[in-house]
Amino acid sequence: MGIRVAVAGASGYAGGELLRLIAGHPELDLVAATAHSQAGVPLSTVHPQLTGLDLMLSATDPAALADADLVFLALPHGQSAALAAQLPAGVKVVDLGADHRLNDADAWVRYYGGEHAGAWTYGLPELPGQRGAIAIANKVAATGCYAVSTILALAPLIAAGAVSPDDVVVVAASGTSGAGKAPKVHLLGSEVMGDLSPYKVGAHQHVPEIKQATGARSMSFTPVLAPMPRGILATVTARPAGNVDPRQVLAEAYADAPFVHVLPQGAWPHTAATLGSNACHLQATVDIDSGRVIVTSAIDNLGKGAAGQAVQCANLMLGLPETAGLSTFGMAP
Amino acid sequence: MGIRVAVAGASGYAGGELLRLIAGHPELDLVAATAHSQAGVPLSTVHPQLTGLDLMLSATDPAALADADLVFLALPHGQSAALAAQLPAGVKVVDLGADHRLNDADAWVRYYGGEHAGAWTYGLPELPGQRGAIAIANKVAATGCYAVSTILALAPLIAAGAVSPDDVVVVAASGTSGAGKAPKVHLLGSEVMGDLSPYKVGAHQHVPEIKQATGARSMSFTPVLAPMPRGILATVTARPAGNVDPRQVLAEAYADAPFVHVLPQGAWPHTAATLGSNACHLQATVDIDSGRVIVTSAIDNLGKGAAGQAVQCANLMLGLPETAGLSTFGMAP
Amino acid sequence: MGIRVAVAGASGYAGGELLRLIAGHPELDLVAATAHSQAGVPLSTVHPQLTGLDLMLSATDPAALADADLVFLALPHGQSAALAAQLPAGVKVVDLGADHRLNDADAWVRYYGGEHAGAWTYGLPELPGQRGAIAIANKVAATGCYAVSTILALAPLIAAGAVSPDDVVVVAASGTSGAGKAPKVHLLGSEVMGDLSPYKVGAHQHVPEIKQATGARSMSFTPVLAPMPRGILATVTARPAGNVDPRQVLAEAYADAPFVHVLPQGAWPHTAATLGSNACHLQATVDIDSGRVIVTSAIDNLGKGAAGQAVQCANLMLGLPETAGLSTFGMAP
Amino acid sequence: MGIRVAVAGASGYAGGELLRLIAGHPELDLVAATAHSQAGVPLSTVHPQLTGLDLMLSATDPAALADADLVFLALPHGQSAALAAQLPAGVKVVDLGADHRLNDADAWVRYYGGEHAGAWTYGLPELPGQRGAIAIANKVAATGCYAVSTILALAPLIAAGAVSPDDVVVVAASGTSGAGKAPKVHLLGSEVMGDLSPYKVGAHQHVPEIKQATGARSMSFTPVLAPMPRGILATVTARPAGNVDPRQVLAEAYADAPFVHVLPQGAWPHTAATLGSNACHLQATVDIDSGRVIVTSAIDNLGKGAAGQAVQCANLMLGLPETAGLSTFGMAP
Repeated sequence: MGIRVAVAGASGYAGGELLRLIAGHPELDLVAATAHSQAGVPLSTVHPQLTGLDLMLSATDPAALADADLVFLALPHGQSAALAAQLPAGVKVVDLGADHRLNDADAWVRYYGGEHAGAWTYGLPELPGQRGAIAIANKVAATGCYAVSTILALAPLIAAGAVSPDDVVVVAASGTSGAGKAPKVHLLGSEVMGDLSPYKVGAHQHVPEIKQATGARSMSFTPVLAPMPRGILATVTARPAGNVDPRQVLAEAYADAPFVHVLPQGAWPHTAATLGSNACHLQATVDIDSGRVIVTSAIDNLGKGAAGQAVQCANLMLGLPETAGLSTFGMAP
Repeated sequence: MGIRVAVAGASGYAGGELLRLIAGHPELDLVAATAHSQAGVPLSTVHPQLTGLDLMLSATDPAALADADLVFLALPHGQSAALAAQLPAGVKVVDLGADHRLNDADAWVRYYGGEHAGAWTYGLPELPGQRGAIAIANKVAATGCYAVSTILALAPLIAAGAVSPDDVVVVAASGTSGAGKAPKVHLLGSEVMGDLSPYKVGAHQHVPEIKQATGARSMSFTPVLAPMPRGILATVTARPAGNVDPRQVLAEAYADAPFVHVLPQGAWPHTAATLGSNACHLQATVDIDSGRVIVTSAIDNLGKGAAGQAVQCANLMLGLPETAGLSTFGMAP
Repeated sequence: MGIRVAVAGASGYAGGELLRLIAGHPELDLVAATAHSQAGVPLSTVHPQLTGLDLMLSATDPAALADADLVFLALPHGQSAALAAQLPAGVKVVDLGADHRLNDADAWVRYYGGEHAGAWTYGLPELPGQRGAIAIANKVAATGCYAVSTILALAPLIAAGAVSPDDVVVVAASGTSGAGKAPKVHLLGSEVMGDLSPYKVGAHQHVPEIKQATGARSMSFTPVLAPMPRGILATVTARPAGNVDPRQVLAEAYADAPFVHVLPQGAWPHTAATLGSNACHLQATVDIDSGRVIVTSAIDNLGKGAAGQAVQCANLMLGLPETAGLSTFGMAP
Repeated sequence: MGIRVAVAGASGYAGGELLRLIAGHPELDLVAATAHSQAGVPLSTVHPQLTGLDLMLSATDPAALADADLVFLALPHGQSAALAAQLPAGVKVVDLGADHRLNDADAWVRYYGGEHAGAWTYGLPELPGQRGAIAIANKVAATGCYAVSTILALAPLIAAGAVSPDDVVVVAASGTSGAGKAPKVHLLGSEVMGDLSPYKVGAHQHVPEIKQATGARSMSFTPVLAPMPRGILATVTARPAGNVDPRQVLAEAYADAPFVHVLPQGAWPHTAATLGSNACHLQATVDIDSGRVIVTSAIDNLGKGAAGQAVQCANLMLGLPETAGLSTFGMAP
């Protein structure tokens, strides 16, 4: 008998990917999968890719989850804090939502609205000291998808003094699963195939999270919706602050990180190379014309950007090997 | 130390997927990966999704492979027979190519040209008696991608007398990876995205293989190139030969097959639900207007259609659990 | 001052394409565009591709349309008959919906339900005698998208006695715009990209329409949703009834049809080659194994399958050149 | 009899789009279409979307072109200068290639290599004074695709003093047709679908052209290959230099430009909305966190980015209405 885990919000895309990872995990046993609006529906109706996993979705109430050793919350922001508050104190929780990511209550109110639920341990093991902090934490707030891709590209450079924390510019394009599964006209296949479009320009809610984790002081952030189901490519540029090779800084920072790969010189990240995995691929250079440092970063928004990262945190919290049940190899083509 | 395996033809799409599956397999150790034209190139240059797998591609010569317990051949037709003939007799071989699939030398010559290399044990464990035959075989010819999707839909129905073996009609659409990795104008992204087009209409080389495995006597087969990297959806129609429920026949035939799922009534297969897995999803009905039996079948052409199936055969040949290192869950969305 | 036309149901995909064609038409002036749920919204908000066309959507009531010389109805089935009944008798109408396509009231009830509104002149000018019938008609029922692609492939062969009207088998794949613009989970980009799936297998409502127009007596029809915004590829197979070259029959049938092209031998249709145009591309062969005749047909479901065809009918009804405002050239890649 | 035009390099994507536009142009008659490697091949074999345009491709030699009033050159860089030098002086030429765009011979050598052919009138009518210059020019160098999208977003802001010409940051994603039609592995559909990847980071050859046209002094430019056939979305950010509304500056700059639309506030550009058209859609805002001005710009890389723009220039050079044969409406979905 393995460690008992449950997933709240199992009908969405992050929830489905969590279930897939848990099903393939050597130590985790799924004891409940809840979905408010789909209670009583067979899992494979909602997630045909999990056909063969005989399980009924149940209602999202605390009683259904209290029995687990660890609960993953994959709920819209605002809902995970409410649910987490009703779980027994001893239950470990990894929250894939935004509710517990920000230290700054004002930033929370400005970007999300409503009351701030307080901050939990930030679930990005690749940040300095964070692997240990997660390992002893009872509650962990997993990082947002755009935030993962940007922070992994930027944090070591600011920490090393290689770039200025002022005037960072990020353009990050995401596959459509990042926008969720609620049916909306602008997310229809007919609308997104063949299309690129920016949204929430200069006003995305992941900005305070990225600044908190990297120390960036000002940042322009433009998200773009891309015609593919999964994947984030972030292009992060910053003004150099010293005379160091940014690629070398990244390579050293992630020398021991099992999921972050700084690519060989001349190779640039492909989101497709990370699909289904927990990998992040990075490359950096200095622009010959402007002198700006340019880092590009590729992840699977549902992998390292959501479910993979959550399992990675759970592994640490449960004393398992960090890589248990996770792959660093993507499914391509 | 696990079982030693090698992959010849590792630079193509089936080869890359084989390497991914072997890397995640609990019992197999990769000892060589060869690629004629890319010898000396790091694997991750050719397959960025395998970044982190430190390995150099080597030349495809028998000496590089002779040391393995089992060799996977993922080579163009005509080449695998030549290479297999040079391997020590004791080396087990799974050939993903077409060279050893057909019993009928005339059919070989008509569809492939050149000399017929003779038939090996046909590598589709779901055919009656075939699981056992593969388990004791030393050389196995894995099934073609279109053939897998069609045979699994059709064979039990003909065997049960539920449909006529005459006048079967198949239309099967495949993702572009089925057409290989050689750069050709008609396979460019600019050409295939947003496009559906038939090819080799009425003349596809998988027809004799399907007839051999199913007992179909005449079959019209139209392949279609679809704007997606992976997946095959086959629509197989045949005239009913009795008064039986085709869905029920399929459900009984595959009751014990771990990778073949007959979907609940009302659900139809999605290729996306099988991506990265070794699953085949089936559904059947009787057309209300024509009385024809219609079966649709979805697989990942690189999974159950190629690399997954090859690993499934290897598992059987090596005395491992049939499902070792394989998943029945797809990566979606 | 040109001929005054109006579009009811202008917010959907067929409506948007109609507006684009009307905007580029040398003789037509748009006087109203109505959309029930979007009345008062600027057109470019609903259709950003029509930015620059300064127009407000109005409510779909007869008064808004009565002033036009010709009204295009692009409404859900059941709604166009109700609206048409309220228009002045002298207003010409092209109905893109299904309400007036079927002669057989029983077939209507079986496939659509509700009361049958009666049949109008069938809007497929390429059928024998139909060009003239449309030219003198006051009300025309435009052909369904799947029906266009299938009828153009099949009708001349049955008429010439080249194939049997029994046991026709059709598999037709459509881009997602054919499923409309209402937001539904299964039409989300995340769901459809990378996926092929059948639906309404053996039960599609275009079957009676195709039988009516072609004389087919029994037909198996399987529609497939394809990962692209536009385009239909129909594969139509039938048993040969004589010893004639099917390609030659088609070439003769369409020798004078400006929008239907039988491709040179060896070339097969690409849906991408028809995008944005009113063209239909056809190719035919005889299967070497089964002897079946196979015809494949490519159209733009919003072009020849909907808006283009409707404008073609309108041109005939208004005494304009059949090709006015329409292109036979697709937008590719 | 209209104005006689010819296209050299008709087999590529820009060449195909030119032919489509010329076929629909009210004043232009195509007298020759040349393609080095495809001489003697029917046009519709190379461009199936132009089926019905009966024309044979001819060899690219000056004699085949000398007879035209205006020649479009759609050739790889380095080839158009050589060919142009052999045409009679009286023949007007629009060069879609890079050979004659740069004033600065050093920049040419650095980014393109080889000898600099000298600069022609720069073919972007929306730049101040350029409409008139093109109208009297005999030879025009059309703007590069990335350059169009970036210059239209940036030039008015620098000219108005609204942003600093230093430290401009651009991330621009393009559909695959921008990478041409030569068959290369990294451009295969299997590779590009589902993938985003940067390339030529900080070293793209359009940088000097953009700086020349906008007055930008330093610019970081990151191009990204996007999984769609057509379209460019450029995100251009710059430091504000005054207290002006960037959207207002753009709206005023393009008040009389028929193809450039500054979208209503709250609407952001979609590349899909420009497909097949000569439109450019712009939107601008000021980032709340960093204060940077962010402008996003969408075009069809083969439309306003290549063939559409070339026809627009030709219209001006020939004394035709600027919009003749061009549409501002895109084909969507």
